[in-house]
Amino acid sequence: MFAVLIEMAVNPQNFQPQDVQQTVSEIGEQELLRRVQQFCPAAVVGDDAAVLTVTPGRSLVVTEDVLVDGVHFSSGFAQPVVTTSAADVGWRAAAANLSDLAAMGAFPLGITVGLGLPGAVPVAWVEALYTGMSACLNTFNTPIVGGDICRSPILTVAIAAFGEVLPNQAIRRSTAQVGDAILVTGLHGASRAGLELLLHPERGEGLQERDRLFFIRAHQRPNPRLDVVPILQKVVAASRYNASQERYPIAGMDSSDGLADAVLQICRASGVGARLERHQLPIPPAFATWLSPQQSVDWVLYGGEDFELVLCLPLELANQLAASVPGAAIVGTITADLAVILGDRTGTVPDQVLTLEKGFQHF
Amino acid sequence: MFAVLIEMAVNPQNFQPQDVQQTVSEIGEQELLRRVQQFCPAAVVGDDAAVLTVTPGRSLVVTEDVLVDGVHFSSGFAQPVVTTSAADVGWRAAAANLSDLAAMGAFPLGITVGLGLPGAVPVAWVEALYTGMSACLNTFNTPIVGGDICRSPILTVAIAAFGEVLPNQAIRRSTAQVGDAILVTGLHGASRAGLELLLHPERGEGLQERDRLFFIRAHQRPNPRLDVVPILQKVVAASRYNASQERYPIAGMDSSDGLADAVLQICRASGVGARLERHQLPIPPAFATWLSPQQSVDWVLYGGEDFELVLCLPLELANQLAASVPGAAIVGTITADLAVILGDRTGTVPDQVLTLEKGFQHF
Repeated sequence: MFAVLIEMAVNPQNFQPQDVQQTVSEIGEQELLRRVQQFCPAAVVGDDAAVLTVTPGRSLVVTEDVLVDGVHFSSGFAQPVVTTSAADVGWRAAAANLSDLAAMGAFPLGITVGLGLPGAVPVAWVEALYTGMSACLNTFNTPIVGGDICRSPILTVAIAAFGEVLPNQAIRRSTAQVGDAILVTGLHGASRAGLELLLHPERGEGLQERDRLFFIRAHQRPNPRLDVVPILQKVVAASRYNASQERYPIAGMDSSDGLADAVLQICRASGVGARLERHQLPIPPAFATWLSPQQSVDWVLYGGEDFELVLCLPLELANQLAASVPGAAIVGTITADLAVILGDRTGTVPDQVLTLEKGFQHF
Repeated sequence: MFAVLIEMAVNPQNFQPQDVQQTVSEIGEQELLRRVQQFCPAAVVGDDAAVLTVTPGRSLVVTEDVLVDGVHFSSGFAQPVVTTSAADVGWRAAAANLSDLAAMGAFPLGITVGLGLPGAVPVAWVEALYTGMSACLNTFNTPIVGGDICRSPILTVAIAAFGEVLPNQAIRRSTAQVGDAILVTGLHGASRAGLELLLHPERGEGLQERDRLFFIRAHQRPNPRLDVVPILQKVVAASRYNASQERYPIAGMDSSDGLADAVLQICRASGVGARLERHQLPIPPAFATWLSPQQSVDWVLYGGEDFELVLCLPLELANQLAASVPGAAIVGTITADLAVILGDRTGTVPDQVLTLEKGFQHF
């Protein structure tokens, strides 16, 4: 029944009720493994672990994320409101991990998927999850190389992602320098807006349909910015910073927990502060017809799940990057005092000190 | 001081309310991260992902396991019966993943830990979990290089482990050859016996205290057989099989889901069968004073969680390995017919066909 919702989210024409009612406990572990292994390259299936090749001279980059039903998504098993179809859960889980690799300046090698499943989960839900993950991963030629499936009272998706990076090109949070420009690779607040529209379809009534779909898509199908990584490397390679091997000139992280969180984390790790300029914030233009200025700024800074990169780098590199990456914008500067300030050079709004208080706290 | 607190989870007499009552939601995510990061090398803390070095020329080996409260362990939050302290949960989770690496013939590089935590979990429980993981990992110089902590209605531990192996020395399930000897690296059934004694302390009354403790320890603190990997490689390097680079002469996997399961999985992957000899089964000697012969055989074959290696290799190599690894034993032979048979050369018990039916099924 609930799986109807999933299938419809993916493609209503393909709905096949006889398949959809079958549950995980009905087909059993071996058959379930066989089904999900169809999403993995044949060469990696069937051993205790997967074997991958890291390009000689590159370092391995690893990251892990855990997503829990009712916390990070709602499957409809635990909650009456379904904001995320199984395919979207899969896409987002893969995207979040690929985004962590992009945030390190790394190229992906593969992911493993650990699933905790209640026995009553429809097999179609699991297959749709893998379909969504694969759709995202295929964009970046990244295979699912293994994983684990076990019983759990709550649907849980644990993904580990592996990538590689030249040791001297890893992007750290801790190397931002006073005077660096702060650049974001795209708009913020769009995912938060999409969630609002999914939860309350009656809101945003002034929005054009195109904008509404844009926000919903930003929430359901975020794009990890792996496309930015080679551009970054090219910009650095062509610059005078290429010569200095002692320090990669770019610090940063992704904005999965919000733009303000990213800037605060970078500043804390680097022992610096920042000044963001209110009029340079990457606010989606359609917010103007829907939200108050303060609400817009709140969603941009604290909405979260935009999966853009927040980078600190010398202004000349930032300008080149902004010219090469559509939607990228310089939003502020790294400063010597330890606070993160949202300023307004027009003097209309008083300076504001940003804190993690409004950000997403997991407990 | 801290280890005392761990014990408290097992022993209510040691209860110290002031420290122990502090919960995960009381200290919040940032402080919790700070606490668990103390178990990680300083160099890897604080970025979106960890950066590791893979030895040039080696392949990366990755594996993931998910453990769920009430399914793989019982924390005492969800169940009245505590068979596994937090430190033991941590040890076992780390051991299971290191065992997967050993089963691939790989050496460990690091693990990441994804935790899903109810807000009411005591911080001391989480710290004890990390203490147990670290205790196991430190034995093998393996760092915790990162992870993720999130809220979840059910305590969940997802571990990804990374190792490295020379590409031509990876141990696969699919390369067992007819005529290979089947060797196990140690006793089986001990973990199952330990679980029985924890759940029903009144049982096993004929057992000596030493044996009782041995079984309980086998359940709570299993040893991944990474120690066997260099011995294997040495035995192969000194043999005539060294010359043949087209095929590594050893197939295998670990026995985490039981000895019978391991043999059946290898046979299925390799397209072969096996004959195990009842009198060569690695039965703990103390079973004789406690269990019926049939019960002993059942626990040895289907008990699970022994985390030994089950290897298929030419008899001459198996003999050398058996001579080099205390407790290792040859238990049977790979055959051309597709069944896995438990035989009895004395003719006392009729031949028996083994199936996965009795093994651990996750759904």
